[in-house]
Amino acid sequence: MRFTVTHTCGAARRGVFRTVHGDIQTPVFMNVGTSAAIKGGVSTGDLKRIGCQVELSNTYHLHVRPGEDVVYKLGGIHKFFNWDRPVLTDSGGFQVFSLAALRNIKEEGVAFQSHMDGAPIFMSPETSMQIQSKLASTIAMAFDECPSSVAEHAYIDKSIERTTRWLYRCKEEMDRLNSLPETINREQLLFGIGQGGVYDDLRIRHLKEITPLDLDGYALGGLAVGETAEEMYRVIEVCEPYLPQTKPRYLMGVGTPVNILECVDRGIDFFDCVMPSRNARHGNLFTSEGLLNLNNNKYLLDEKPIDERCECPVCKSYTRAYIRHLFKARELLAMRLCVLHNLWFYNKLMENIRRAIEDGSWKQFKEEQVYMLGKRA
Amino acid sequence: MRFTVTHTCGAARRGVFRTVHGDIQTPVFMNVGTSAAIKGGVSTGDLKRIGCQVELSNTYHLHVRPGEDVVYKLGGIHKFFNWDRPVLTDSGGFQVFSLAALRNIKEEGVAFQSHMDGAPIFMSPETSMQIQSKLASTIAMAFDECPSSVAEHAYIDKSIERTTRWLYRCKEEMDRLNSLPETINREQLLFGIGQGGVYDDLRIRHLKEITPLDLDGYALGGLAVGETAEEMYRVIEVCEPYLPQTKPRYLMGVGTPVNILECVDRGIDFFDCVMPSRNARHGNLFTSEGLLNLNNNKYLLDEKPIDERCECPVCKSYTRAYIRHLFKARELLAMRLCVLHNLWFYNKLMENIRRAIEDGSWKQFKEEQVYMLGKRA
Repeated sequence: MRFTVTHTCGAARRGVFRTVHGDIQTPVFMNVGTSAAIKGGVSTGDLKRIGCQVELSNTYHLHVRPGEDVVYKLGGIHKFFNWDRPVLTDSGGFQVFSLAALRNIKEEGVAFQSHMDGAPIFMSPETSMQIQSKLASTIAMAFDECPSSVAEHAYIDKSIERTTRWLYRCKEEMDRLNSLPETINREQLLFGIGQGGVYDDLRIRHLKEITPLDLDGYALGGLAVGETAEEMYRVIEVCEPYLPQTKPRYLMGVGTPVNILECVDRGIDFFDCVMPSRNARHGNLFTSEGLLNLNNNKYLLDEKPIDERCECPVCKSYTRAYIRHLFKARELLAMRLCVLHNLWFYNKLMENIRRAIEDGSWKQFKEEQVYMLGKRA
Repeated sequence: MRFTVTHTCGAARRGVFRTVHGDIQTPVFMNVGTSAAIKGGVSTGDLKRIGCQVELSNTYHLHVRPGEDVVYKLGGIHKFFNWDRPVLTDSGGFQVFSLAALRNIKEEGVAFQSHMDGAPIFMSPETSMQIQSKLASTIAMAFDECPSSVAEHAYIDKSIERTTRWLYRCKEEMDRLNSLPETINREQLLFGIGQGGVYDDLRIRHLKEITPLDLDGYALGGLAVGETAEEMYRVIEVCEPYLPQTKPRYLMGVGTPVNILECVDRGIDFFDCVMPSRNARHGNLFTSEGLLNLNNNKYLLDEKPIDERCECPVCKSYTRAYIRHLFKARELLAMRLCVLHNLWFYNKLMENIRRAIEDGSWKQFKEEQVYMLGKRA
């Protein structure tokens, strides 16, 4: 079995997902490096020091620059950015629907203009798989339509029908690409994506349509895009019985530490979010006692580390006062140190979540953490 | 003796300078971190990995932000930025004369406006020593006037007279500050600065005036500010006999690898320059075969490291193609990797220079290196 659930506590699962680039201990938070680099000057050496298991890169961005052919000629994404652990690439779909201009959605695929230079791009289930195959990530994501979060029931109804048809095309194309001798990673995995907005009936129907494809994992898409946290939790609860027990479940683009705790509790195994790195670049830090903003004057002479209970390389070396100074002096080191801290915080949170599920203390751990992490330091 | 010359080869010297923060092996290149941080997101952990012996911080920048009182209250600059090796602070003089607006030079000192917000600042020999004492660097620099490189003989004649009077005031103030119980580093060292533009008679006269003060080291200022390299070399040759043999000699703000080789050959022990880090941030890299610019299209698919003969952490991990991609994608990691490489290159060059002087191969080594490093890769 590629995925083994070793412990459960209610719907919460502790598992191991085996890949050609090494095992992934779940629940896991994937660290987002859009263009095969974590923003803020973080190197792959840094990533190992802060406990990153899976790096997530964006297919759309790499397609636009440097182009998948460059990455392919350089031996695939792992060799390209010097990372030997798993990499997940998204399908490009989310960026097509959120960044690109003048898009035209047809059954065949989506024609749109690059957000960078207006160049025409066409992306379809087949081209998305081809790009991801050339990138040679560990896990590829299916190409889906990402409808607006305020789309109506009738629109999403039609949209998930097309997304299902597209998923069959993704699987067929991925199978074909994995059989080619020139493919770098012939064991590239494919995760499908369940959509359906905040409509329980559509969510259930879509999962019933796509789970028979027996893909390597299943994601929930189209959440954390405007609905309330409570709506999101309800959708996950509605979906959970329809997600295969034997496959990893990935909640795309989520979220805060509290979101993650609540969603692990509802059976999610994989997460990713730009929040820890984006917040860090603005001086917003996650700590064991809640949020802290280093731009605040009160840290001018504060000799404490960002988080007194944290053992990350930043908290062992630098004070709040110094990092605050770096922000004021517009030194890039400010961003790097804060990104390192926040990603360590997320990776450590996942490690603690895994331990709590293993030793049976999950429910108590979750309640305590939700209370502490919701606070402002 | 604080400074011991262990080997010589012609005017070139191999020495050890003992400080309260550890020994400095000379010739040495000091790595410039303007606001107590190396630009490009380089941490003090990185600095140790790339062989930095001495970090140089700018008094003017730290005075403006965060202010010397903040650094003092936080325990001095070493504690502030988590660095336990020597730190040299400049006097602020160079920035006063190059950055500040509306300056008014009087015998007492210089009144000017901050280049950041126009706030009025007054800096004098005494205030410069007071600021540097609060910063608690290992080596403080004397506060001097830095005349324009095109200033006439008559102007510089008057200027060095004032700079000599200011130097006496610097020494007196530094002695007083080092005797105070509240001073963090009561063994703070003071280097004097010889000026005189490109006028040999003024250079000699000024050194004759200031060397009797028996300071901890002597710098040559006002070079590499517009004159040709040949003029600079001539001035150093003219000055060399008048610089004490038993004190380290610091050539401020110099220079290219070739400049450094030529100036070591003329008896210089200390160097600093923003060139390696500034060039790096624009993709200009120093290699064993000359200069290389990573923005060039020919590196699009280049799987070689920046320098095939380099053992720096960057060359062991990343390709030219990847770092080029990082520049195109505007990832901060591009700057960090290139700064690390260039500073490693400079620090390694100094290590090789020291070894060549030790083993008697200096003249041959210098000729070979001047030939190789002047080339474009």
